[in-house]
Amino acid sequence: MTMKLISKLDELNHKMYGTDFLLTWDKNDAQINATLTTAQILKKLYESNINCKVFKSGLAVSNFRDNSTRTRFSFASASNLLGLAVQDLNESTSQIAHGETVRETANMISFLTEVIGIRDDMYLGEGNKYMREVGDALDDGYKNGVLHQRPAIVNLQCDIDHPTQSMADLSHLITYFGGVEKLKGKKIAMTWAYSPSYGKPLSVPQAIIGLMTRFGMEVSLAHPEGYDLIPDTLKVARDNAKKSGGSFKHVKTMQEAFDGADIVYPKSWAPFDVMKKRTGLLQSKDIEGLKKLEKECLANNAKFKNWECNKAMMKNTKGGKALYMHCLPADISGVSCKEGEVSADVFEKYRVDTYKEAGYKPFVIAAMMLLAKFKDPAKVLASLHKNRMA
Amino acid sequence: MTMKLISKLDELNHKMYGTDFLLTWDKNDAQINATLTTAQILKKLYESNINCKVFKSGLAVSNFRDNSTRTRFSFASASNLLGLAVQDLNESTSQIAHGETVRETANMISFLTEVIGIRDDMYLGEGNKYMREVGDALDDGYKNGVLHQRPAIVNLQCDIDHPTQSMADLSHLITYFGGVEKLKGKKIAMTWAYSPSYGKPLSVPQAIIGLMTRFGMEVSLAHPEGYDLIPDTLKVARDNAKKSGGSFKHVKTMQEAFDGADIVYPKSWAPFDVMKKRTGLLQSKDIEGLKKLEKECLANNAKFKNWECNKAMMKNTKGGKALYMHCLPADISGVSCKEGEVSADVFEKYRVDTYKEAGYKPFVIAAMMLLAKFKDPAKVLASLHKNRMA
Amino acid sequence: MTMKLISKLDELNHKMYGTDFLLTWDKNDAQINATLTTAQILKKLYESNINCKVFKSGLAVSNFRDNSTRTRFSFASASNLLGLAVQDLNESTSQIAHGETVRETANMISFLTEVIGIRDDMYLGEGNKYMREVGDALDDGYKNGVLHQRPAIVNLQCDIDHPTQSMADLSHLITYFGGVEKLKGKKIAMTWAYSPSYGKPLSVPQAIIGLMTRFGMEVSLAHPEGYDLIPDTLKVARDNAKKSGGSFKHVKTMQEAFDGADIVYPKSWAPFDVMKKRTGLLQSKDIEGLKKLEKECLANNAKFKNWECNKAMMKNTKGGKALYMHCLPADISGVSCKEGEVSADVFEKYRVDTYKEAGYKPFVIAAMMLLAKFKDPAKVLASLHKNRMA
Repeated sequence: MTMKLISKLDELNHKMYGTDFLLTWDKNDAQINATLTTAQILKKLYESNINCKVFKSGLAVSNFRDNSTRTRFSFASASNLLGLAVQDLNESTSQIAHGETVRETANMISFLTEVIGIRDDMYLGEGNKYMREVGDALDDGYKNGVLHQRPAIVNLQCDIDHPTQSMADLSHLITYFGGVEKLKGKKIAMTWAYSPSYGKPLSVPQAIIGLMTRFGMEVSLAHPEGYDLIPDTLKVARDNAKKSGGSFKHVKTMQEAFDGADIVYPKSWAPFDVMKKRTGLLQSKDIEGLKKLEKECLANNAKFKNWECNKAMMKNTKGGKALYMHCLPADISGVSCKEGEVSADVFEKYRVDTYKEAGYKPFVIAAMMLLAKFKDPAKVLASLHKNRMA
Repeated sequence: MTMKLISKLDELNHKMYGTDFLLTWDKNDAQINATLTTAQILKKLYESNINCKVFKSGLAVSNFRDNSTRTRFSFASASNLLGLAVQDLNESTSQIAHGETVRETANMISFLTEVIGIRDDMYLGEGNKYMREVGDALDDGYKNGVLHQRPAIVNLQCDIDHPTQSMADLSHLITYFGGVEKLKGKKIAMTWAYSPSYGKPLSVPQAIIGLMTRFGMEVSLAHPEGYDLIPDTLKVARDNAKKSGGSFKHVKTMQEAFDGADIVYPKSWAPFDVMKKRTGLLQSKDIEGLKKLEKECLANNAKFKNWECNKAMMKNTKGGKALYMHCLPADISGVSCKEGEVSADVFEKYRVDTYKEAGYKPFVIAAMMLLAKFKDPAKVLASLHKNRMA
Repeated sequence: MTMKLISKLDELNHKMYGTDFLLTWDKNDAQINATLTTAQILKKLYESNINCKVFKSGLAVSNFRDNSTRTRFSFASASNLLGLAVQDLNESTSQIAHGETVRETANMISFLTEVIGIRDDMYLGEGNKYMREVGDALDDGYKNGVLHQRPAIVNLQCDIDHPTQSMADLSHLITYFGGVEKLKGKKIAMTWAYSPSYGKPLSVPQAIIGLMTRFGMEVSLAHPEGYDLIPDTLKVARDNAKKSGGSFKHVKTMQEAFDGADIVYPKSWAPFDVMKKRTGLLQSKDIEGLKKLEKECLANNAKFKNWECNKAMMKNTKGGKALYMHCLPADISGVSCKEGEVSADVFEKYRVDTYKEAGYKPFVIAAMMLLAKFKDPAKVLASLHKNRMA
């Protein structure tokens, strides 16, 4: 079974060696397929207690510019599984505050580094740009002989995409429905939901509509007026849907999106315009302005408390039995907040499913690392499998 | 010699596979014995420069909800010795502040995790409860297929017990007196001592009286009026003493406890009542109330400055030569504070002994990990020993 | 080629086993040579993708009492390369604030520790002293049977020297000029340069004049009046120059130092007197005094803005083509600050060189670790090289 998957990987013309994983829509179908397949293989090897340390040594640098539990532990687990040691780049205890350039830091942390994982999701227009800047600096360092190897960058969430999340979500759907080909025609509702907090990144909904539209799914996006996503990401979704034979619909209510859905993904985010304003205020350190914006935004949010995924809302879905998804942690009404994204009974019904969904992330990240750093990943994996008795 | 210890371990019917180590009094004699023996074996293997990496890969998560040097480094050393990578769960840079449930966090950090070490000693009635809550969540995750393996929890100090400390202390006593059977009839004085700080946890004295009463020792507990321990832990000590043929006495003065003692363990702690009040104030974030309580408590402490372990006090012990013990760091009069738990000359005399006492902790923790995670630990250890030439 | 270097190392009578690396001028020529050679060998092994994990397990403790990016990652990389796991000693989350003695902490963190790396450069008269105090405590612990092995200390920058930096700088010069014997007669200008910050340590210029004078180089030191270094370090430089057949000149202007130089190392530092005052103010936590001192010092700095390494200044050097060096991050005019140590065009011309210069540090640190911890390092390295096909 594992050997079959390895053969499948071997046949894919993915050419991911030496590449970064920044946006799923930068990757062609063979590459998405190779990532999913490699994640599956690594999960099987791990569950068979097979040693997966493909690196002799080396650092995996994590640069979290925002809080994280799941992704931090997923990155640490993936690194450890493959034989790398995690080293955090903590910008407050480093020299970075002294005005060091991105170009310089990128090289200074990379002399014996294989992978750099970056989370930078707070500043609209900045996060992905920063990752590319780091990548350019690494190219420059490698080309000029500063670096003996070119570390691969893994996007652990930016302002535009959250590829390790959406790829884990996709892995979960494939397992749940019994194969990627079963996703064709399935309806997924990516909707906004009420939360008593503000300023949540747009990257998850953008990631979902940008990825799920590639598999012939019917993707519905819904949010209150004004809670727009980055316009370019809607274009990506539309184009993907056209190519894959699926559809992408932008509707106005949670009900409409949920109607007949096989899968629902209700999740709060901040309006695009608010995020733009917020980015400016954060950059100018305008504390008063930020407080005012938060107050306005929370007041606006409060108009949409009925955007809650509860039992009544779930009745709109196919047979009332759609699969509920969330990147976690969810704002659960009566549990983690007074009123939130999802009612306690709906969340509890799908709780174990959401945990399993999260469980794919370490293997997705490990797959991205392996594919970027080994010329012949199928051969490497076959060799692990062969040595399983060692 | 090492093979003899391995054979001894093999004969113990300990059944520790798949269990957490939360309280020593939850463990039967075979289990305590297995832990001590495994720690001894690992120490010997390490000192013979034998590779002890029994895990192929995997994380050891440390969750320190209070400061730590010794235990942090002991946990890191134990993890590293067995082949695990430490990953700190830092609650301030995680999503936990966002209202994530304990159940969820426990699963999210555990996908490729073998061991979770927790220190939670600040809130009376909370620390051990929290560890059990994490344990229940892991059981639930494992049962439901969220987790491929069930990480073992090691209590790195809670409100009730400090098992890695007391087991290290016990290992020290066994070595010092030349065998566990030599402890029978030895008198140990666990006494309060003056410190210019307040709010020190009760877990060490509780751990000591709960563990040392199992070996036929004569355990004396002494503290000023009002500096009570959790009443349940005294019942544990009394019951253990009865079963082991030792004794447990609750006396009123340091002199009385020290009288004829073979071992003394003078250490400051806060009164049970104060810790209860403090827990309430901490939970309600009542800064003023905390300051007031600290002031009152320090004033009360100051009445008992004569509870110092000095030369004159030591003369009460057997031949004036009792072994002095401490979990460290001690408040040493004239060194780390003006007036404290122990005089500088007494501490200096036993300084190296206290350091050796601390040196058992990494191996005790490693033993707890190994016994919880391997079905046949004796076989695993025998195989390490056999491969020693590799 | 690698085997030739290993043979060369084997012939050096360095006797570095069991020693700390605290000051380059505590090391004899064979020891400096052994360190350079081992760093070179490890770099070659690493670049040949040869497994360099010479430790079965063990911790490498890092104790950064000041910010760091480069040195932190270099230490982490070196540790990882050799098979050690990094454990940070974070003094704020440890028990150290509770008045624990240096002697005790040193032992408590060392039970399974192979190396301790320390940066302590803020307090004049304190940093190196602290390292020696830690070393004495480790000797005591090892002698008394507290520690099974004596961890080696690596000075990651103190108040007096910055040996991992100067040894990396030296490695860079040897590669750049094609051999250590080519350094004879080369002129290097170690000069102060303007920076809009104050309180930068003296350790880099002191390290450079103390090391480069050993190779027959002509070392020129220049700084504005009052910006003296620790007088003892000038004596070291003078004595070294005499022995090596080089020279050490203390001149008054950047121009004079640059005149005919093959290498320039322009870098800001605080005056010795200011650092002494600052140490006192830091120790007494005199915030107002520190602010006042900073203001005065910045005002004084501002008188010397013409101490900038720019195109015009570089024209003074040999053929206008001296190699520019810096420990990074540099204060680059118009890039990281308005006016700084170096103009943007000069820095850009030598940017890749300075990055390569930094790239030697991980291997220099790994060499220091290996030489201190293995009785026969040449044999260990030969065995790695021999097993390269494994």
